[in-house]
Amino acid sequence: MARARLRELGISIGRFSPGPLNAVTDVPGVLVGHSTVIHDAPSVARTGVTAILPRADIHADYAFAGFHSFNGFGEMTGVHWITESGLLTSPILLTNTNQVGLASQVLVEYGARMHGGAAFGLPIVGETYDGWLSEIDSFPLQKEHVLSALESAAAGPLAEGNVGGGTGMICYDFKGGIGTASRRFTIEAGTFVVGALVQANHGERPTLRFDGVPVGREIGPDSVPAPWPSPPFGGSILIIMATDAPLLPVQCRRLAQRAGVGLARTGGVGNNGSGDLFLAFSTANHYPAKPGPRLDIAMLPHTHLDALFEAGAEAVEEAILNALTAAETMVGRKGRRAEAIPLDRLAQVLARYRPSAPPGV
Amino acid sequence: MARARLRELGISIGRFSPGPLNAVTDVPGVLVGHSTVIHDAPSVARTGVTAILPRADIHADYAFAGFHSFNGFGEMTGVHWITESGLLTSPILLTNTNQVGLASQVLVEYGARMHGGAAFGLPIVGETYDGWLSEIDSFPLQKEHVLSALESAAAGPLAEGNVGGGTGMICYDFKGGIGTASRRFTIEAGTFVVGALVQANHGERPTLRFDGVPVGREIGPDSVPAPWPSPPFGGSILIIMATDAPLLPVQCRRLAQRAGVGLARTGGVGNNGSGDLFLAFSTANHYPAKPGPRLDIAMLPHTHLDALFEAGAEAVEEAILNALTAAETMVGRKGRRAEAIPLDRLAQVLARYRPSAPPGV
Amino acid sequence: MARARLRELGISIGRFSPGPLNAVTDVPGVLVGHSTVIHDAPSVARTGVTAILPRADIHADYAFAGFHSFNGFGEMTGVHWITESGLLTSPILLTNTNQVGLASQVLVEYGARMHGGAAFGLPIVGETYDGWLSEIDSFPLQKEHVLSALESAAAGPLAEGNVGGGTGMICYDFKGGIGTASRRFTIEAGTFVVGALVQANHGERPTLRFDGVPVGREIGPDSVPAPWPSPPFGGSILIIMATDAPLLPVQCRRLAQRAGVGLARTGGVGNNGSGDLFLAFSTANHYPAKPGPRLDIAMLPHTHLDALFEAGAEAVEEAILNALTAAETMVGRKGRRAEAIPLDRLAQVLARYRPSAPPGV
Amino acid sequence: MARARLRELGISIGRFSPGPLNAVTDVPGVLVGHSTVIHDAPSVARTGVTAILPRADIHADYAFAGFHSFNGFGEMTGVHWITESGLLTSPILLTNTNQVGLASQVLVEYGARMHGGAAFGLPIVGETYDGWLSEIDSFPLQKEHVLSALESAAAGPLAEGNVGGGTGMICYDFKGGIGTASRRFTIEAGTFVVGALVQANHGERPTLRFDGVPVGREIGPDSVPAPWPSPPFGGSILIIMATDAPLLPVQCRRLAQRAGVGLARTGGVGNNGSGDLFLAFSTANHYPAKPGPRLDIAMLPHTHLDALFEAGAEAVEEAILNALTAAETMVGRKGRRAEAIPLDRLAQVLARYRPSAPPGV
Repeated sequence: MARARLRELGISIGRFSPGPLNAVTDVPGVLVGHSTVIHDAPSVARTGVTAILPRADIHADYAFAGFHSFNGFGEMTGVHWITESGLLTSPILLTNTNQVGLASQVLVEYGARMHGGAAFGLPIVGETYDGWLSEIDSFPLQKEHVLSALESAAAGPLAEGNVGGGTGMICYDFKGGIGTASRRFTIEAGTFVVGALVQANHGERPTLRFDGVPVGREIGPDSVPAPWPSPPFGGSILIIMATDAPLLPVQCRRLAQRAGVGLARTGGVGNNGSGDLFLAFSTANHYPAKPGPRLDIAMLPHTHLDALFEAGAEAVEEAILNALTAAETMVGRKGRRAEAIPLDRLAQVLARYRPSAPPGV
Repeated sequence: MARARLRELGISIGRFSPGPLNAVTDVPGVLVGHSTVIHDAPSVARTGVTAILPRADIHADYAFAGFHSFNGFGEMTGVHWITESGLLTSPILLTNTNQVGLASQVLVEYGARMHGGAAFGLPIVGETYDGWLSEIDSFPLQKEHVLSALESAAAGPLAEGNVGGGTGMICYDFKGGIGTASRRFTIEAGTFVVGALVQANHGERPTLRFDGVPVGREIGPDSVPAPWPSPPFGGSILIIMATDAPLLPVQCRRLAQRAGVGLARTGGVGNNGSGDLFLAFSTANHYPAKPGPRLDIAMLPHTHLDALFEAGAEAVEEAILNALTAAETMVGRKGRRAEAIPLDRLAQVLARYRPSAPPGV
Repeated sequence: MARARLRELGISIGRFSPGPLNAVTDVPGVLVGHSTVIHDAPSVARTGVTAILPRADIHADYAFAGFHSFNGFGEMTGVHWITESGLLTSPILLTNTNQVGLASQVLVEYGARMHGGAAFGLPIVGETYDGWLSEIDSFPLQKEHVLSALESAAAGPLAEGNVGGGTGMICYDFKGGIGTASRRFTIEAGTFVVGALVQANHGERPTLRFDGVPVGREIGPDSVPAPWPSPPFGGSILIIMATDAPLLPVQCRRLAQRAGVGLARTGGVGNNGSGDLFLAFSTANHYPAKPGPRLDIAMLPHTHLDALFEAGAEAVEEAILNALTAAETMVGRKGRRAEAIPLDRLAQVLARYRPSAPPGV
Repeated sequence: MARARLRELGISIGRFSPGPLNAVTDVPGVLVGHSTVIHDAPSVARTGVTAILPRADIHADYAFAGFHSFNGFGEMTGVHWITESGLLTSPILLTNTNQVGLASQVLVEYGARMHGGAAFGLPIVGETYDGWLSEIDSFPLQKEHVLSALESAAAGPLAEGNVGGGTGMICYDFKGGIGTASRRFTIEAGTFVVGALVQANHGERPTLRFDGVPVGREIGPDSVPAPWPSPPFGGSILIIMATDAPLLPVQCRRLAQRAGVGLARTGGVGNNGSGDLFLAFSTANHYPAKPGPRLDIAMLPHTHLDALFEAGAEAVEEAILNALTAAETMVGRKGRRAEAIPLDRLAQVLARYRPSAPPGV
């Protein structure tokens, strides 16, 4: 059965409707690029890097952002400044654990080039660990891969699953990777969109749920093997949320914490060894790198944020599930095999839990 | 149909087994007392106070604790010191929004009495808003009610639903209140218990789930009316977690954040107007109020905490659902009526979502 | 020698000039009221309450604010919501440790009255411990005192020293209390003012400095006795900062942390038993209690904040010293005597440390 | 006049005595290594890297640690895990802004080598900006420099000033760099040492103070030129504190925040563009990378920490001043010259502010 997005399987999450692409790129201006590195020699590489640009000229036109650490066993660089100032001044890169350094260095150089030579910045680079499938100690990612992700970043539909930073990832003991989704919501101030992109490498099979259905319990390791020996450190998930709703930094941070709601609904509990790091940004306000004496900012009242919070949680939930349904079975180092969640089995399980009679009876 | 605990309805949450009482009082030494205030004159009161003592002599023998604010639209006093030091030096009181001041003052006086006259302390008092059913501006709680909760605190089984601080609360647009649950887990260091007690006054009907089943969507306001006009401010939930596992303060804080996992599974998204404040403590270590020169402390390694985190999330999830199934329909001020979730309808819904064929087919 | 403000002694702190009153009330709209409670029967009371209103109608027109805990051994209620939302929705009360509850309750009732009966709110009440001089366990503050502070709050010059919440406080082993100061600063966007009000009850004599001069070392306990037995718990300081510069919440929090700079310059190290809690607010933006669909907000760029930070630190430093020079020797319970810093000795010490020859030699 | 340590100039800071080396290496087991990179071709390099190992086998025997961001305009990687767990599992590297990535990558590889090939870890790398003197965009630091700093790390006396990560740094508009100091303190549990190492690249001349004396005001830019054009971004300071006192993670974090006290005393206000990031660790407890089922931990009671806090603040203050008095005038890119603080002028200023008559007169 070909891989699919969750909605292609007839499953909808939540109360809100997705944007046209059901992707983080539904937020106008947001660009995403993947660079995928798969080879078996000289080392076995199953890795890559994903670039998210809040806007094309983020180096010159900063956005507001907020961060939340649901479980800090992981790295996302550049966050001290986001916490301090609420400013996002850099593209965001997602990659493998060992190559945060490389990605960070390239991002500094890239920033320098974008500014005619004056490198500076606090690059944002997040990581999850793909060393179960990939020879991570061979440091397979190269500078050109990072630049490629940055330079190919584009609007429009996104590849999911075994791409970019998600290439070698494992999620709920199935093959994981990159997933995305979005939601539109209408409040007094207008209609806005909130999108999520995840690099999903977390979780244990038994707690996995799709729209509340205990799929992980139903598709046990007897029928679909789990990685063995278990990946060390318990995995991790990076969640990036974007919206065009006008938010202050403090509101972005509130949104970031709601990523944990979507994560929990799929079965995440924030295992000790999981780096569950969430970043949310809003593209509505513009903060020029060379600002005038005072800036005019728009914000939604806090009392109008409930739709954003719920829609955001839904987008995260669906993005994680999209990572699972999009990812394909992958064979990596030492012949290890990470099984994709079988879509036919998934459909059967979901059908079995479908209500047996019309509501209201 | 008489009110019941969730398990009496045949519903189990999660992978871990509860302690003998399935209550926070399964943690040895933890005491809980309720004082319930219900009258129609001189004002309409539907309120109360719940006291949780980590141990009988908490004023003399401190415990480690940690705090997490999932959404800060609420009050829990005394938290700056917990965040700073990791010490819990006070009983915990849960009550209505307007009477945090009273409860706080009584707790100071009570502490003074326990210490022969030298009052000092940073009392821990949390609140949720019961003003939809209760004439909260009449300040119905009296000093003797607070003392009664403290002095009646005991080990053993707990009353749930419309008792103590939960008396007038509303949860997912049904009658809410106090709920509790516990889980046992075995790790290399031994078998431990983690318990939760919630004062549940949060959430919107449509997102409510029982063990993943969309009960709130199925039992809509057409069949069971929701409070109208809506309670202002979106409600709140206070979650207290206790364990006898030996934790450092930093580990208690980690546990506290996992309360949000249990909350999210039941449908919580952290609405703007919800004060979702979580406190977790461990009774294993003893920190005397008058300590010697150095203290010997035990801790579990972080890498052994996954069972605690998952068991804790389960206990929170079940405690919230217990609050709903235990609470009875209540009529309050202006004749307002908060409907209990109908247990027969609940059973029907859950049956409809029960898998229609054996797993593995 | 009559008590005086620091500048009346010929001492200036820092590089910036004060506003016309050299007080937090130089920030337009800010109101301050003191209620002082001194009696010897039925109990010995040396206490009071100070009210700070960011503006007269703060219940209806919220301000942005930020909080920092430099050392959390103390209470300031209502802070979870400030941290969450950046909104200050309440007057601020400063009082004694044991009566946070009373002040909180009265503030809720006061809020109810201001809104025609619908009490709600997350009252902001901070405390320091005056139990060395005052019979704090007699709970001497009454409801009318709290209301009086609120209702008498006014613009204009402020009383300092043994007034309001500062009445019974002790600072660097001298008599302490309330102090205030302000600074004006001019940046590209215009001229603004930042003010501080402190309730100073912290510190040990040996580390006290005035403008860098080790006054505490020079005026030892042999010449001016220190309180004996030492006040328990090490004291505390509450610092409230106000500005009319347009700040986001995240910027208010940055300003709040700078209060620690002023505190450290006077000799504060954040002793274990000191509740050193800082709150900063900006009056420039208006956030109506009943907001429209979207709010227009002004902010200074972060890169323009250095003058604010330094001016704010200066205001705090001078406010603490003003508390010391304004406070008068006080005799309290058990005949205990807290000595005011002797201004003649202070002047001598400062003169001795004055540079002995013109700069540049 | 040859460069000197502060104490060699006859200046003592504070009430506590230093350890035998007056350096962070007074804490038993702590190792420090510098690698200094100075060349004029192919690019102008004035940079380097400093390695701090809490103990030789930190990869196998973790220490407790805590972090505080006084101003977040800077990078220190690996901190999410410290905040989450209180564990320090990596050496600490301090280097230039653009080469955090390189240092991070090398640290991962180094960790891999130390563990026989299994690289993993959350490397701790901090940075300040040396681009005023050094062609930072030439990325002059090489892998071998990083390894050299790690491998040469040793106990014993330390070089200060223009060495290691501090090579090209500027502080209070004088030449800055690496500085260190320590303090011993005796409490009921015994005698302990607390040490600090700073990479000082922060501050503006006018606020600089030595032991309270306004040295920066006295030695103005007319007599000793300040860097011009000003270094962008306002500089930064990294402060690492170490102690052999037995602390919990929460206590390490408390200690870390006190670094700001020492910084403020020297004139630091946390400028907007300053990355003022503080890390404190305790070597007393041992947390094996492969722990048993439960760990026995020792802690000091919080009430016994005041000496640690004050001694730590003193060590930080003196370490910053040592960086200034040790650093030599440096000429860098574009012929730019960063002047060392002239020690003769410094002595004159300090003499002028020395008290003009015996105390007590």
